[in-house]
Amino acid sequence: MKLSFSDMRKLGVSAFLAAGVPEDAAACVTNALLLAELDGMPSHGFSRIPFYTDQARSGKVNAGARPEITQPAPALIVVDARNGYAFPAIEAGLRLAVPLAGQYGIALLAVRRSHHCGVLGHYAESIARNNLIGLAFSNTPSAMAPWGGNKPSFGTNPLAFGCPCAHCPDGQPIVVDMSLSKAARGKIMNAVQKGESSIPEGWALDAGGMPTTDPVQALRGTMVPMGDAKGAALALMVEILSATLTGSNHAFEASSFFEAEGPAPGIGQSFILISPTRVNPDFPHTLERLTQHICGQPGARLPGARRFALREKRREEGLELPDALYEKIAASARRENA
Amino acid sequence: MKLSFSDMRKLGVSAFLAAGVPEDAAACVTNALLLAELDGMPSHGFSRIPFYTDQARSGKVNAGARPEITQPAPALIVVDARNGYAFPAIEAGLRLAVPLAGQYGIALLAVRRSHHCGVLGHYAESIARNNLIGLAFSNTPSAMAPWGGNKPSFGTNPLAFGCPCAHCPDGQPIVVDMSLSKAARGKIMNAVQKGESSIPEGWALDAGGMPTTDPVQALRGTMVPMGDAKGAALALMVEILSATLTGSNHAFEASSFFEAEGPAPGIGQSFILISPTRVNPDFPHTLERLTQHICGQPGARLPGARRFALREKRREEGLELPDALYEKIAASARRENA
Repeated sequence: MKLSFSDMRKLGVSAFLAAGVPEDAAACVTNALLLAELDGMPSHGFSRIPFYTDQARSGKVNAGARPEITQPAPALIVVDARNGYAFPAIEAGLRLAVPLAGQYGIALLAVRRSHHCGVLGHYAESIARNNLIGLAFSNTPSAMAPWGGNKPSFGTNPLAFGCPCAHCPDGQPIVVDMSLSKAARGKIMNAVQKGESSIPEGWALDAGGMPTTDPVQALRGTMVPMGDAKGAALALMVEILSATLTGSNHAFEASSFFEAEGPAPGIGQSFILISPTRVNPDFPHTLERLTQHICGQPGARLPGARRFALREKRREEGLELPDALYEKIAASARRENA
Repeated sequence: MKLSFSDMRKLGVSAFLAAGVPEDAAACVTNALLLAELDGMPSHGFSRIPFYTDQARSGKVNAGARPEITQPAPALIVVDARNGYAFPAIEAGLRLAVPLAGQYGIALLAVRRSHHCGVLGHYAESIARNNLIGLAFSNTPSAMAPWGGNKPSFGTNPLAFGCPCAHCPDGQPIVVDMSLSKAARGKIMNAVQKGESSIPEGWALDAGGMPTTDPVQALRGTMVPMGDAKGAALALMVEILSATLTGSNHAFEASSFFEAEGPAPGIGQSFILISPTRVNPDFPHTLERLTQHICGQPGARLPGARRFALREKRREEGLELPDALYEKIAASARRENA
């Protein structure tokens, strides 16, 4: 069904409040999932609400947790999310890390004992909107094997990059955002949720290591890394930068984002923030040379551009939510509010 | 022909001295190329010497340049290589950036107006041997098109990652090192130099955009990015981090590493150094959980492990150099020493 932006927001917040999530966290998490919907990424949008609220109810997510913030070195912010939702913990950390990057030239934000952080590119974008270059890394529960190995060891481990671009159309930043599997695991989850019978070839292996197009078998197996051996090596890099560095659970130690029971996933995120004009005062013009060269080629565009165009259109025109998902979220919102 | 480590070193240094390269730069560049030979990467080893020395003779490389070092922000080192060789400029920058990372938790080294930096993973390794996590980025002359575009715009743009690993075999660091093309361009260059008639399918497109296995046609065309669209987006990210950020020439603005004439390539490199124990005091043990999980899988190994094993073996047993290449370097060494 079609919903206006503000009705969609009310729906999300009410579902979180009904699950006992404090008001500020309910608003923060809903805004993040809503932005994914605006960007045309339903696998990271409201489809997550039933899982998120069930985990708040079971206590798998410590929804009332206040993130604990320390600064163990001058250019370093460490946030212990204490197994609460990732969004408020990361936002609190970025508020402190952004001015540090301006001051020191570069800063690092490390987030430990965290949870699913939604669209990683949104943080890279947010950093870029503060006139900084952002690199973002997250691990996720295990989904891919090391190259040559056979056990799911790394997550699909997204990495994202954001860069301010004064000369880009509407001054929008450049945002690169990718999981290191050939496809995002959320897309397979979404296919299962919609009851779809198949996913494209080459995305996944079943639990026995054989290629499969069955989304249910794929969720039980492993994802194929993008770029094969190189992608698997990048997944190890992201695993170390997000989990090992922050002192969080590794992919193979983390519980599912989709089941309500069990211990918290306790995964990690890290963010590197760089002030480009401290390095190269002429950075905006240097970048203009590159963007003009790219945009002058028919068919080529800057990463992120399509996302921003869709976002504004949907914010004005409203959003589509599958009927079954709407009913599920609305029922959950009524459950303890009645 | 087979040469001992020390004879090989003498050969390299004498070729650079004969081309008018100052002694300290000759030693530094030779050591770097020799390490590539030890690691079994001849495409980044002594095969580069004829190009490097020809460029010193023509003035395309300003071999006597003293790198100019500034610290525009507390955690930031900027090195202007002044179109000299990359190796001495990067080494000088790292000597200053390493202690900054310990002090601030994270530091950035930006190198501008630089040259071919050889095996990028060697810098990531060197950072890791200082008990820091290292990320390294370099652009190279244009070799790949943006996704959807048709012009060679980005280099093969390597990225590398190094991580100290106290519990790994012999305490060797983890080193991830990859170009973002499906194959390194140096491998194609090497195939041309050896007169080989073909390269594997899927590596390259000819100048008309069609797949080719002819190494000469491949050098005139573009390289295929690893992981297709995702790899092309990573290449843009590395281009910005290495060239735009440092105020250097972009890939499409840079002259060839292989031709003696024309302006200097003037490309860039950047390096991020992180102190893992400032973030997570228990980092070595957290990492041990991950490495044990990986190494416990038959067939899986940590990236870099094979490189280190070969290195020690070759250092003791000597190295193979193609006869033609040996003659070329030896002749060059005699040219102005006679």
